[in-house]
Amino acid sequence: MSNYPMVPGHEVVGEVVEVGSDVSKFTVGDVVGVGVIVGCCGSCKPCSSDLEQYCNKRIWSYNDVYTDGKPTQGGFADTMIVNQKFVVKIPEGMPVEQAAPLLCAGVTVYSPLSHFGLMSSGLKGGILGLGGVGHMGVKIAKAMGHHVTVISSSEKKREEAMDHLGADDYVVSSDQAEMQRIADSLDYIIDTVPVFHPLEPYLASLKLDGKLILMGVINTPLQFITPLLILGRKVVSGSFIGSIKETEEVLAFCKEKGLTSTIEVVKIDELNTAFERLHKNDVRYRFVVDVAGSNLAEEAATTTN
Amino acid sequence: MSNYPMVPGHEVVGEVVEVGSDVSKFTVGDVVGVGVIVGCCGSCKPCSSDLEQYCNKRIWSYNDVYTDGKPTQGGFADTMIVNQKFVVKIPEGMPVEQAAPLLCAGVTVYSPLSHFGLMSSGLKGGILGLGGVGHMGVKIAKAMGHHVTVISSSEKKREEAMDHLGADDYVVSSDQAEMQRIADSLDYIIDTVPVFHPLEPYLASLKLDGKLILMGVINTPLQFITPLLILGRKVVSGSFIGSIKETEEVLAFCKEKGLTSTIEVVKIDELNTAFERLHKNDVRYRFVVDVAGSNLAEEAATTTN
Repeated sequence: MSNYPMVPGHEVVGEVVEVGSDVSKFTVGDVVGVGVIVGCCGSCKPCSSDLEQYCNKRIWSYNDVYTDGKPTQGGFADTMIVNQKFVVKIPEGMPVEQAAPLLCAGVTVYSPLSHFGLMSSGLKGGILGLGGVGHMGVKIAKAMGHHVTVISSSEKKREEAMDHLGADDYVVSSDQAEMQRIADSLDYIIDTVPVFHPLEPYLASLKLDGKLILMGVINTPLQFITPLLILGRKVVSGSFIGSIKETEEVLAFCKEKGLTSTIEVVKIDELNTAFERLHKNDVRYRFVVDVAGSNLAEEAATTTN
Repeated sequence: MSNYPMVPGHEVVGEVVEVGSDVSKFTVGDVVGVGVIVGCCGSCKPCSSDLEQYCNKRIWSYNDVYTDGKPTQGGFADTMIVNQKFVVKIPEGMPVEQAAPLLCAGVTVYSPLSHFGLMSSGLKGGILGLGGVGHMGVKIAKAMGHHVTVISSSEKKREEAMDHLGADDYVVSSDQAEMQRIADSLDYIIDTVPVFHPLEPYLASLKLDGKLILMGVINTPLQFITPLLILGRKVVSGSFIGSIKETEEVLAFCKEKGLTSTIEVVKIDELNTAFERLHKNDVRYRFVVDVAGSNLAEEAATTTN
């Protein structure tokens, strides 16, 4: 694959500039999005259940090998060719830069809330970790009518969580009195922490049938003692992005609720600076790259075939 | 409490010999059962959801303190006084010695299968560990129409599992090729192992949305890496006995299916020998103590008030 440069970008929005002869879902001019995967086997149990993200033969939007043997290349490009199955329509009137983070971060939070029956108004949710996924978690959970507690490792993000994102409560995880205050109170926790952490304080904060939903790929084993699960029928699970169907749902949900993601648009020639800032954690909460450098809806493009 | 001897017994069946003036559920002569708990607060969320086994103020059937300040005493007795809320009717025609193990072991297996939506015919289940709870697991899962794989640490119980209990498959957990054979195939595993064990082989054997349900109280932390959960939305949970409502359900289910538990009846004066055999694991799968030493239904008694 050395002849092909790696082209990243997995939360992609653009305009359809050309369609293949079998394309029925889209026409030229549609504003569309592409998320994390662009292929799957189409015949396994997950695929036939509209859960293609769990297909063992899923093809990543970039840095993977497509069915033609060529590398997949993502959205940091002028154009992109994608099978229509993996393309979603951006709802009319939704700003394209707002839509982009919903295609991974947004659906990653929406999918488990939907799957595990956690959409009802009035639930009490915890968001552990306030990064790109966590901030969407707060916004989506609030839009569902939940009481949202942000749990963080320090005081640093309190103002951000409470005043800017609209969280209802903020708890520093190392403060045992505070953790005790929320014991046995939460219906779920979306755990976005990507490194080893103890689970017991969070399991203790769940009520009967509460669910701890892990998002972070952590290859150091996490630990728990069984009475913490057994004596409250608590659930530890994980969830992986979301399906195309759920991506359509989260877009419709955000459009209906007028929910926006918190982003900063950078032009393609500012990308190196943006990467440097990313390394320093200096981003609230996603950079959206305007690939064309001018008018995204006019110039950048996603083509379906 | 030194004046009161400890009287164990938490899977109790007997005949009602007297009822209090407010008792409406039972009359003298009814054959009834009592399980693991005999009291709860009655007002917390679990209690008001008919899940009194998860009430933080639950009162154990023995070796606990009752609301009157006196110790609770269990079923190894001539008579027992129990609030009617915690008493269930034994279905007509069900042998009393068969009913006893359903009141803890039986409902302990039935409850999570019911709660987690695992009752449909055709599911593939794993039973990890073949003791008192595991053997009921095989029987109940088979009666639900499941394909049942017993997973055990050795070959020792193969014949027992396959020929006597009717399991469909038997896998020795240390045999990696065998574990590989069942990878990604099970809808659930009922894990009855009461000591530390690695979870990863079992998580790997679950299919998408598969559930690992822990039964053993293990205070050594169990471990897992998150990708094993995330990339199949697998669930690790636990479950604690069952509610009174579920106890009634499992009794009705076993009556309908003609399901029997595998037991050995011992007389009260053979109890010391039975305990010695228990210590050596020499029991298939429950000793049922005939407290009266002669005709249980005539002589032993549970009184409700």
